[in-house]
Amino acid sequence: MTKHHVIIVAGGSGQRMQTSIPKQFLLLDGLPVLMHTINRFHKTLPDASIVLVLPSEHLAYWNELLAQFNFDVPHQIAKGGETRFHSVKNGLALVNSGLVGIHDAVRPLVSSSTILRTFEAAKIHGAAVPVLQPSESMRILNTDGTNGELIRDALRTVQTPQCFQAEKIIEAYKQEFRPDFTDDASVAEYADFKITLVEGNEENIKITRPIDLNVAEMFLKNIR
Amino acid sequence: MTKHHVIIVAGGSGQRMQTSIPKQFLLLDGLPVLMHTINRFHKTLPDASIVLVLPSEHLAYWNELLAQFNFDVPHQIAKGGETRFHSVKNGLALVNSGLVGIHDAVRPLVSSSTILRTFEAAKIHGAAVPVLQPSESMRILNTDGTNGELIRDALRTVQTPQCFQAEKIIEAYKQEFRPDFTDDASVAEYADFKITLVEGNEENIKITRPIDLNVAEMFLKNIR
Repeated sequence: MTKHHVIIVAGGSGQRMQTSIPKQFLLLDGLPVLMHTINRFHKTLPDASIVLVLPSEHLAYWNELLAQFNFDVPHQIAKGGETRFHSVKNGLALVNSGLVGIHDAVRPLVSSSTILRTFEAAKIHGAAVPVLQPSESMRILNTDGTNGELIRDALRTVQTPQCFQAEKIIEAYKQEFRPDFTDDASVAEYADFKITLVEGNEENIKITRPIDLNVAEMFLKNIR
Repeated sequence: MTKHHVIIVAGGSGQRMQTSIPKQFLLLDGLPVLMHTINRFHKTLPDASIVLVLPSEHLAYWNELLAQFNFDVPHQIAKGGETRFHSVKNGLALVNSGLVGIHDAVRPLVSSSTILRTFEAAKIHGAAVPVLQPSESMRILNTDGTNGELIRDALRTVQTPQCFQAEKIIEAYKQEFRPDFTDDASVAEYADFKITLVEGNEENIKITRPIDLNVAEMFLKNIR
C-alpha cells in the first residue's frame, strides 16, 4: 500500500486576527482549529504519518493544548522556517517515499472527499491541487500601470492539501528559494512538474480574518 | 452639481439559493436584501436617481414587498433583459448625463466609502471599479489543457458599484452583445475605456449561496 504523509503547516503568526493567539490555536466549536485540521486527515487516512510544522516559540503552548484537550492523534513536529517555503522544506525532511499532502493548518474544513480526490490524482499524475471556480470577476494589474479583464471561466482558486509523489516534491524543494513561491504547486511548477487540478470543497476556507471563524462555525454543521 | 444615477441590477433568478425566492428578496436581518442595497445608496447619495432593473415577472412581488415594509425610497423600474448586459442597457435608457454607478442587487453591504471612492474616481478618470486583493492563490487554465500560476499580488477581485461618466458608458453599451461581457468594466473596456481601480470593502460580498446570507448577517453588525 502506498504510504501517505501529511504535512500541516502552522507557520503563521496571526497578525490579522486582532488577537495575540495565532489563528490555528483559536477555538472553533470548542476545539483549537489545528486539532480540527489534524482530525480531518487522521479520520480520512488513519494510516497517514502526520508532520506538524510549528514555529519553535509555539511548541510549549501546543503541548499545553494537547494535554488540555486530551488530544492523542500521533504526529511528529518539524520546526517552522523563515517563510512557508522553508517550513515545508523542514517538514519534507521527515518524509521519504509514497505520497505527501501539504496542508494549511488554518483550513480545518477540508472534506474527506477533497483529501481523497487530491491524493488519488497525485498518485496517478504526480502533482495535484484542489481548486474551485471563483464567484467574482477578476482583473489583472499590468506592469505598465493599466489593468485588464481575466476570463473568469478560466480561473481557479487554489486550496490545500496540495498533494505530490514524495520523491518529486522533495526534489522540487531542493531549488533555491524564490519570493514568488506562493504555494507548493508553484514550487513544483518551477521544477517543471505538471499540476493536475481536482475539485475542492467550498467549506475549505482559510481562516485569516476574525469573521472567518464565524463562517467556519456555520460550515462545520454541514461538512461531511 | 454632478447628477448621480444608480442602476441596481436584480436580474438573477436565484437558482443557487435552494429556494424559490430570488436571492435579492430574501430577508437579511428582517429586511429584503434589495432594500438594504437601495438604502445604502440612498443614504450615501440622497440626491441620486435610482433605477431598479427587475425581471417583469418579479414586479408584482416587489410591489407587495414595498407595501409590506413601507419602503418609500423613490426609484424607477426598468425591465430585466435576457442577460446582464441587456438588463443594464435597459437601465441606462433612463440615464442621460452625469455619473452612473451600476451595482449588483445582491451586494447589500457596500460601504458608503466604497460608493464615494468609486464615483469620485469615475468623475475624474471616466470609469472606476472597486476591487480587493484576493486572499488565495489562483491558477489559470490554458487552452492547451495545462494550467499555470498567476501572481497573486497582481490580481484583484472585482466588486460593484462600477461607476462611469454617463455618456461614456451609454456609448459603450451601444456595442453588439458579446458572451464574454462579464461585467460593466469589460463592456467599457471593449469600447477602449481605461478602468481605474479603487479600494472596495471586504463586507461587500455577493449573496449567491445560502451561507452568504449568514455571513452577511454577521458583517451587517460591523458595517459603516
